[in-house]
Amino acid sequence: MIVRADWVLPITQQPIEQGEVVVQNGVIVDVRRRSGTRGSADVLDFGEAIILPGLVNAHTHLELTVLRGAVEDTPFFEWIRRLVDLKAALTESEWRDSALWGALEAAASGTTTVADTTDSGAAVYALTQVGLRGRVYQEVFAVSPEQTVAKTLDELENKLQQLHRATQGTAVQVGVAPHTLYTVRLEVMAALREYTRRKGYPVCIHAAESSDEIALLQEGKGKFAQMYAQREMRWEVHGKHPVDILHEQNWLDANTLLVHAVQTEPRHTELFAATHTAVAHCPQSNAKLTNGIAPLGEWLERGVRVGLGTDSVVSNNTLDMFAEMRSMVLLQRAVRGVDCGVTTRRAVETATAGGAHALGMAEQIGTLEPGKQADLCVVALDNVHCFPAYDPYAALVFSARASDVLMTMVAGKIVYQRGEYPQLREPVQRLRERLRYTVRRIRERLAQDETG
Amino acid sequence: MIVRADWVLPITQQPIEQGEVVVQNGVIVDVRRRSGTRGSADVLDFGEAIILPGLVNAHTHLELTVLRGAVEDTPFFEWIRRLVDLKAALTESEWRDSALWGALEAAASGTTTVADTTDSGAAVYALTQVGLRGRVYQEVFAVSPEQTVAKTLDELENKLQQLHRATQGTAVQVGVAPHTLYTVRLEVMAALREYTRRKGYPVCIHAAESSDEIALLQEGKGKFAQMYAQREMRWEVHGKHPVDILHEQNWLDANTLLVHAVQTEPRHTELFAATHTAVAHCPQSNAKLTNGIAPLGEWLERGVRVGLGTDSVVSNNTLDMFAEMRSMVLLQRAVRGVDCGVTTRRAVETATAGGAHALGMAEQIGTLEPGKQADLCVVALDNVHCFPAYDPYAALVFSARASDVLMTMVAGKIVYQRGEYPQLREPVQRLRERLRYTVRRIRERLAQDETG
Repeated sequence: MIVRADWVLPITQQPIEQGEVVVQNGVIVDVRRRSGTRGSADVLDFGEAIILPGLVNAHTHLELTVLRGAVEDTPFFEWIRRLVDLKAALTESEWRDSALWGALEAAASGTTTVADTTDSGAAVYALTQVGLRGRVYQEVFAVSPEQTVAKTLDELENKLQQLHRATQGTAVQVGVAPHTLYTVRLEVMAALREYTRRKGYPVCIHAAESSDEIALLQEGKGKFAQMYAQREMRWEVHGKHPVDILHEQNWLDANTLLVHAVQTEPRHTELFAATHTAVAHCPQSNAKLTNGIAPLGEWLERGVRVGLGTDSVVSNNTLDMFAEMRSMVLLQRAVRGVDCGVTTRRAVETATAGGAHALGMAEQIGTLEPGKQADLCVVALDNVHCFPAYDPYAALVFSARASDVLMTMVAGKIVYQRGEYPQLREPVQRLRERLRYTVRRIRERLAQDETG
Repeated sequence: MIVRADWVLPITQQPIEQGEVVVQNGVIVDVRRRSGTRGSADVLDFGEAIILPGLVNAHTHLELTVLRGAVEDTPFFEWIRRLVDLKAALTESEWRDSALWGALEAAASGTTTVADTTDSGAAVYALTQVGLRGRVYQEVFAVSPEQTVAKTLDELENKLQQLHRATQGTAVQVGVAPHTLYTVRLEVMAALREYTRRKGYPVCIHAAESSDEIALLQEGKGKFAQMYAQREMRWEVHGKHPVDILHEQNWLDANTLLVHAVQTEPRHTELFAATHTAVAHCPQSNAKLTNGIAPLGEWLERGVRVGLGTDSVVSNNTLDMFAEMRSMVLLQRAVRGVDCGVTTRRAVETATAGGAHALGMAEQIGTLEPGKQADLCVVALDNVHCFPAYDPYAALVFSARASDVLMTMVAGKIVYQRGEYPQLREPVQRLRERLRYTVRRIRERLAQDETG
């Protein structure tokens, strides 16, 4: 099969005008200027469009999709408190439908790989149903003393076994996500470190997201500290920044993905570079939840592995990697100037090869070159807001919208094309009808909250 | 005619679920919950969608549309220098086609009113061809000493007469835009002040956009100062901030719209409030060209009239007011926290009623209420990235994209619906073919620049 368009962006080399990608058995065998082959059934010619590596969403929570925009206009602490309340209302099958809707959105937006942090495990179902590639990190919480080390590891092992069964023969891998240092007690963290290393699991941890998190861990102050005090729970105060605590516990290595790291200092950048720790950068979530602007320019300059993530639709409120690329550039330039090195090309690289590197998947995906998996997306350039396009990187980051995605392909299989999801086994409309029921229930709960 | 949808956002009151807007002779006569009227030929029922006032783009330059993304990854000074070079290459008819393409994009994105700053005058042609409402400010430049007061006023008068002829019987008004304090000499500014006041023209001035502008006017330093020195031109140094210079010249009043004002101080906010001066806020342009983040929260808090603008597609790179609303909220929250008061509701208000107020058009447009012009747009909520939607403001700002606009109406006439522009008298494809010729020429010029 040959996929052809006005532009091909291999990422590893300059954009190719009038290019094509040749795919055999799900693998890329050639990336080149268009050949003479014409009109064959196996040529997909998209004309005025860009072919680029499938986008890698380095951090989200697909299961939360049905809560899109349910918590608005609040700072981080209030936001997470209300989110935890709403999560408690959902059933197992609702988690699955919710995650599935998110996977559809990701596919329709040109995303081929999703790094998901899941409480329910529903993301595995969602990704495999739609035919997406992914890494699903099983979340671990251990707040109360009853959640002992033994109990936590036991529960985790059960959940991981389920995930392994569900991912067999798929393009989805399994990892472990100790949630954060304010939701997993330190002794449990230490045990999880030992466990994940012994078993060779990739790891994902939310770290240094909000000032309240820093205040709790450094000084035992702030809103999390007040909440734990009200619940008469002790939370160990280390007088240290969360990243420093993680470093002491030996979490910082090439197998660990830190999410956000927005409230970090220059010495942490050095630490990430020295330990090969990866970061999932979520600029829109950070801005919206008033957690600030991460030192992305410094990370990239020092060679830290950085992927771009949308975070969940409760904080963003879409899985749109195009909007995320644009915001990534705008937020950096607004505060750090154009010399911050965050160009449009850098944005596209971060959303593709950067994510692949951050997830340790760079040998399989992230660029268009022979031998890699045929994970790609095609973006129309002929819509009114995209014309003219002088430079394909600028067009992707500053003109294109996720709605301009014409086709998304994973390992040579089309997972989205012009409104259709060829791998999905049920009609989208049926899924939507089930979700409407959940939405009504959440609406009622929100209305109750408002009336007190 | 009745326009109906799941949500109507009148702006003047709470969102109406299952609402409708009743239009007679181009004017809104009722805004209410849906009535019993069914299936009549005059009912447009959009179902799972939001009806809101047409978006008011408070600042752009439509004529530059064919240069979309032609100057990238440069800070402000270099950007404007290269833009001036490219502008010199375009002919009169190319300006018109370029502006027309921009007007199409605006209409397709839900914009009904455009405040345009035009050098060539082409925006009048563009807006009237597509059927949009607007205010077109004729730009004035007077850099060299040869551009005397008399010559400048004479040329301006000629251009304004042409604009008046072209706008007769249309929904487009005429204004005057002395470009900036670094492109119009002070004596010419003074004469323009007298002229515009005598003739009653609304005024638009770019002010306090970049640090180089401030450096030139306050200290005679920076890149503009160097450029003028190289050209052996003197530029008067006032030792004052541009807004203070404008204040001294009595520009600050209810008829004046300042564009950007991003590099301003708290005392300027007080000045804007006291003098009823309006501001066109262009957050994406400011961020992208590394001019920083405006004190929007303070402006809104102090009751300054603020409209939202995309600026031209050379700096943005689209006329997408949805992306602009999202960036407006994200950029403020990133640096000022959620308490900055820039909520999703505030963003929609600024993009509609705010713009109408800033342009002095609030009696005709900006909200949906009886007696106002039937300027509105309809935004689909049933696309995968918009579902579910718990709150219509959050859905518009954080989920919806301009591509979700189903219909745009100006004074009761449909100017855009599902890919079509009913008022346009030539096929879009013909316009595009003409523009392709211009694009090729610009491409060649850009290639020459690169090779030296």
